[in-house]
Amino acid sequence: MSNIRKIAKECNLSVATISRYINNNGYVSKESAEKIEAAIKKFNYTPNEHVKAIFNKKSNIIGLIFPDFINPYFGEMATILGDLLQEYGFRTIFSFTKDDINKEMNALKIMQGYKVDALVIARGLCVEKIEKLNIPVISFETEIKNKVVISADNYSGGAEVFKYFYKKGKTKLVHLRGPKNFQATESRYKGFLDASIEHDIEVDIIDFDINLVDYKVVYQKLSEYDFGKYDGIFAYNDILAGYLVDYLRSIGIVVPRDISVIGFDNSYISRVMCPSLTTVEQSLEQIAEKCFEILIRMVEKDEDIIDNIKVPIKLVERDSV
Amino acid sequence: MSNIRKIAKECNLSVATISRYINNNGYVSKESAEKIEAAIKKFNYTPNEHVKAIFNKKSNIIGLIFPDFINPYFGEMATILGDLLQEYGFRTIFSFTKDDINKEMNALKIMQGYKVDALVIARGLCVEKIEKLNIPVISFETEIKNKVVISADNYSGGAEVFKYFYKKGKTKLVHLRGPKNFQATESRYKGFLDASIEHDIEVDIIDFDINLVDYKVVYQKLSEYDFGKYDGIFAYNDILAGYLVDYLRSIGIVVPRDISVIGFDNSYISRVMCPSLTTVEQSLEQIAEKCFEILIRMVEKDEDIIDNIKVPIKLVERDSV
Repeated sequence: MSNIRKIAKECNLSVATISRYINNNGYVSKESAEKIEAAIKKFNYTPNEHVKAIFNKKSNIIGLIFPDFINPYFGEMATILGDLLQEYGFRTIFSFTKDDINKEMNALKIMQGYKVDALVIARGLCVEKIEKLNIPVISFETEIKNKVVISADNYSGGAEVFKYFYKKGKTKLVHLRGPKNFQATESRYKGFLDASIEHDIEVDIIDFDINLVDYKVVYQKLSEYDFGKYDGIFAYNDILAGYLVDYLRSIGIVVPRDISVIGFDNSYISRVMCPSLTTVEQSLEQIAEKCFEILIRMVEKDEDIIDNIKVPIKLVERDSV
Repeated sequence: MSNIRKIAKECNLSVATISRYINNNGYVSKESAEKIEAAIKKFNYTPNEHVKAIFNKKSNIIGLIFPDFINPYFGEMATILGDLLQEYGFRTIFSFTKDDINKEMNALKIMQGYKVDALVIARGLCVEKIEKLNIPVISFETEIKNKVVISADNYSGGAEVFKYFYKKGKTKLVHLRGPKNFQATESRYKGFLDASIEHDIEVDIIDFDINLVDYKVVYQKLSEYDFGKYDGIFAYNDILAGYLVDYLRSIGIVVPRDISVIGFDNSYISRVMCPSLTTVEQSLEQIAEKCFEILIRMVEKDEDIIDNIKVPIKLVERDSV
């Protein structure tokens, strides 16, 4: 006998009444509700989420698609946002893309299959596909027409880095530019470049479009350049800055004595590195809270929201400049 | 009209036939299958995963419960294992506990509601509840009767740290011991202590049962102790070792000139720290692959497995000793 039928028999009520009560979609008298609650406790019954998702118009699931959780930046963002959603009573389904278009397409298909009430996608690549999705979407870092886009103000962040170097008298500058298909790092690059043009300073740009997971590959690539001619390096994120400082030390260039380095993200490693890293903070708490607030408005209140939100950044001074 | 009915009409077949095909639970002729496939493409139909989960005996979902993804160790483990499962075709549902018993109970309830085919739970706290679960479970780091338990050989790791210090002539030792409710860090502590007793060396133990998220709280606690009297410190993980080296530097104690430090995990930070950190490697790849292999056997082949697997560890020599 199914659980619902067992409960119906115990309460001497119809299966339809039990289903209305469990799925919260119709009238059930107070007296019946109390009987049902007692039976649920007695049989230690867990409602089947799949049945609930089919009976109710909403699945109560939020889908979250991230590149990975190895980058501490995404791991922290996923934890903060996931925790807010879970505390509120939503279910969450996570998927990974590893910045691979096929994996991302697959993740989007799974999320549609689960009829998620809304989707948060970080650093999405399948822009056209996401644009056509018929559910509320928050796109983190990638601009997508007619959707909510949220990101740190990466452009201002890049510009702030240039201005800080300039203020400190550093004008022989190079930027290690991130992968061109990531809008966040591209904005950092543009902000840095535009500020340098404004100040009439020529800067060098090195394309650093490689995966940072394998440190040997990173050190090999770093060894192809002569950093001795610069007095300031802007790395597109903290992880790369960490490797860079370590690499420079290994060839006898000491930060900040011989050269200054600035990172981006203000993640945990920027504090424990030696020297501690001057970097740009993007407040993950602010970004996650904003995402959460918009999700509630879209899912609970059925608001149709299109927005492009830039969360302010802040340069954090430490010892690497 | 529902999607299935639309497809049935298009193919001139019964809804039951379409359902059998989509849910893969009954005979459908080759000719019908081809017609259905064409209609699925034409209508761009995504099967409802909830309906599939109810029609099929298996939900095709693996539940993964982690403390968080901020600790790079868990973030990496979740990414490697999640990726293996997704590549194989499983769906994954993640939940967080933040090492909070109530959150963990809630996560377990959600997973049961989704009728997950199996569960992986990292550093679980509700041992009795998990023991009674009627689904395949892999417990990572926490020993649970009649379930598969997998962890790095933390006990040997702790012992190796003592022996390495001893070999290097360091005998004025202290261990910063992790929270007592985490079996992994407790095993490191016991291994270290037993090896010291075996070598007839008395070591000090400092209980470090605080959350490492807020560095100010960590530095405050570190400042309560006089580390000047030691020549070697074993921190229960790399994060704490990172803070420790930075704290010691701030009070004029230089690692490794004045004192040696060893961590545990061999996470990314152990390489970018200065000095780079001597630490104990637990191979997350090996652990994740073992979990994956056992999950397949339990879920696909319905094997009943009870096991206690210890994955070998390795001391990684760097510059902090």
